[in-house]
Amino acid sequence: MEPLQVNLQRIKSDILALAEIGRNQTDHGIYRMAFTDADMEGKRWLKSQIEDAGLPYRIDGAANVSTKIQGTEDGPEIMVGSHIDTVPCAGALDGTLGVIVGLECLRCISDAKISLKRTIELVAFSDEEGRFGGMFGSQSICGEINPEMLATMTDMNGVKLEDELRRHGLDPLDALDAARDPHSIGEYLELHIEQGPVLDRMGKSVGIVDEITGLFTWSVRFKGEANHAGTTPMEMRNDAFMGLADFAHEIPRILDENGSDRSRATIGKAQILPGATNTVPGLVEFSLDVRDTSDQVLEELATAFRKALSAIARRRSLIFEFQQKSFIAPVHCSKTMIESLQRQSDVLGLESNLMPSGAAHDAQIMGRMVPVGMIFVPSKGGQSHSPSEWTAWTDIEAGANLMLNTLIQLAS
Amino acid sequence: MEPLQVNLQRIKSDILALAEIGRNQTDHGIYRMAFTDADMEGKRWLKSQIEDAGLPYRIDGAANVSTKIQGTEDGPEIMVGSHIDTVPCAGALDGTLGVIVGLECLRCISDAKISLKRTIELVAFSDEEGRFGGMFGSQSICGEINPEMLATMTDMNGVKLEDELRRHGLDPLDALDAARDPHSIGEYLELHIEQGPVLDRMGKSVGIVDEITGLFTWSVRFKGEANHAGTTPMEMRNDAFMGLADFAHEIPRILDENGSDRSRATIGKAQILPGATNTVPGLVEFSLDVRDTSDQVLEELATAFRKALSAIARRRSLIFEFQQKSFIAPVHCSKTMIESLQRQSDVLGLESNLMPSGAAHDAQIMGRMVPVGMIFVPSKGGQSHSPSEWTAWTDIEAGANLMLNTLIQLAS
Repeated sequence: MEPLQVNLQRIKSDILALAEIGRNQTDHGIYRMAFTDADMEGKRWLKSQIEDAGLPYRIDGAANVSTKIQGTEDGPEIMVGSHIDTVPCAGALDGTLGVIVGLECLRCISDAKISLKRTIELVAFSDEEGRFGGMFGSQSICGEINPEMLATMTDMNGVKLEDELRRHGLDPLDALDAARDPHSIGEYLELHIEQGPVLDRMGKSVGIVDEITGLFTWSVRFKGEANHAGTTPMEMRNDAFMGLADFAHEIPRILDENGSDRSRATIGKAQILPGATNTVPGLVEFSLDVRDTSDQVLEELATAFRKALSAIARRRSLIFEFQQKSFIAPVHCSKTMIESLQRQSDVLGLESNLMPSGAAHDAQIMGRMVPVGMIFVPSKGGQSHSPSEWTAWTDIEAGANLMLNTLIQLAS
Repeated sequence: MEPLQVNLQRIKSDILALAEIGRNQTDHGIYRMAFTDADMEGKRWLKSQIEDAGLPYRIDGAANVSTKIQGTEDGPEIMVGSHIDTVPCAGALDGTLGVIVGLECLRCISDAKISLKRTIELVAFSDEEGRFGGMFGSQSICGEINPEMLATMTDMNGVKLEDELRRHGLDPLDALDAARDPHSIGEYLELHIEQGPVLDRMGKSVGIVDEITGLFTWSVRFKGEANHAGTTPMEMRNDAFMGLADFAHEIPRILDENGSDRSRATIGKAQILPGATNTVPGLVEFSLDVRDTSDQVLEELATAFRKALSAIARRRSLIFEFQQKSFIAPVHCSKTMIESLQRQSDVLGLESNLMPSGAAHDAQIMGRMVPVGMIFVPSKGGQSHSPSEWTAWTDIEAGANLMLNTLIQLAS
């Protein structure tokens, strides 16, 4: 059978239409954070797109919006998905692209009246961006949500998830009903923008993800002594900031010695106190974000970073504390899925790149329950989470065709 | 003649009384910032102390409070002074000690009915702590204030100096009349707490200042690119924070190569943007405060720091900008004054230490116009600008006796 082709015009028109929901006219960013009015409007828009395509609409207890094409045989379905909620001041593609492309695949299969053995379901998961501290939609589907979480999940402004759900006429406890039987899903496939510069720099249209990186984040604190910058001789200081500078300087060595070429370590946030030009810093608090695709490498990096921090604290007479703020285990994509994607990519004549995902996605949650696969399309200049986020239409088309034909092949 | 002795009880009682003016009962800090109501109350308290001692009271157009003992001969007077305004949440001694000790010296000379050839004047300068951006009192006396400054000087909350002066019934333009004829002042002597740990660690009672450090402060900005901490490989980053870390790491080398043992360099303040755990910093803005007692060393340090910043920016593909925010030239204390202080210190059997002043004082302003000298007394643990600021009474007594007998010797 000749490969099917998505209708790029429909994808374009859907992306541009959804981008207007939650758009701020001043900074041109999209503000469609989970369970805001804009997000709910986005869900309603998606409902109408599903219904216009003549497909069945469903919304589950976690407000995950879904549709499907029924297969001719019983057995585990293929799930595709992503999310339409955004970070504040977002671009048009993060999450949205995966949902729109998924919908387009279902429309194409439906339009072409192909009869497939397996059911294909599209899910737009709620709150992938973690407004309420997790990935509420995919966690609900994986049965990772419990009543205590429902009662306590709160956003950064102190707004409770349960209040937001009730505000929209939803019953928070219904989220517990969103859990699926793991045996009902054969595999999960997600298309997403890369959110990094690799494909763009290589000039390749699609990435096939082999591993989704795990990460740990620490909050670290060095306590020294705040002193007058003029009257305290250099050798009588316990300068907390210099402890941080020493540590930052060790990062390349630690990655070289203990990491892989997929390791990343970032100090993204630091507060220096008291924070006056003429005062030697007495306290610094900073974040450390460390990622790799191997559990063991992550563990070795944690040990090496801890040793470095402790040695610096000793050398500079600082008190050193750290707290692990989060840990997410790496997820390995399914070998079968990777091979299917590579095969279809060859059939379509696409130049693909086997690569890790450095960001977390719904696929990471789904990967704890079922085999997963991911398709990346290039992010121009590596930009994401910003109105400058973009991907060439030709690359979007390539990625969408890869998804469509892989789905057909898997479902046949 | 046997050395005179100050009356420590009077000093104690004055310090403790003035410490209650502007005291906050919650944090126990003193809030007597220049031209606040508490500061004006302090000035009125000082007036009553002067009058109680039977000395003449004067307040000039810059609200500098002064008194004097008239000498028997014409000719340049000896001025002693410091300030009674404070930083927010101050201790009891910074500035205050120099004023109280100066007053005590005049009281002792007056009580002892010694006839001195030269006039000795005590001045409590307004706004040494720079609420309005300078050292308003000593600058006025040195003729460094002009009508434009009077119209524009503003505190950090946008309050204008001229409005604060008017609020207290003062005419801002009168500050121009505070300027003294440089020939009318032979020398200026100031006693101050060290505000650093050196004397305390050496266990010496008094410091004799040979040089007051100069300084420059820069605001530096590295601009890179904000990127996702997971998806951006280490070698594709333009991490602005890592530029700052590199720079901080170069400070010891730059001081070793280009500085003296009196050089200090401090990064006291840094802002990292966007400042999210999972985002590679795209921008850092930080302060650099560099001090030395030599103009030439300061210049060489500035060159070395500039070169280091520029090399780091080049290496890390960052854009680098800096702005000089302030420059204060070093001041060399008068040789004659240093020798007088050393001689009297020997006469009194004190252990003194010849040392630089790392902080700026009214003496630094006065030093541009007349020969200056400074006496330091130890700061416990190097603490200052905090309610924990303290000096042993015995050290205060030693410093006060050194000032008293030096004044008598200079004025005889």
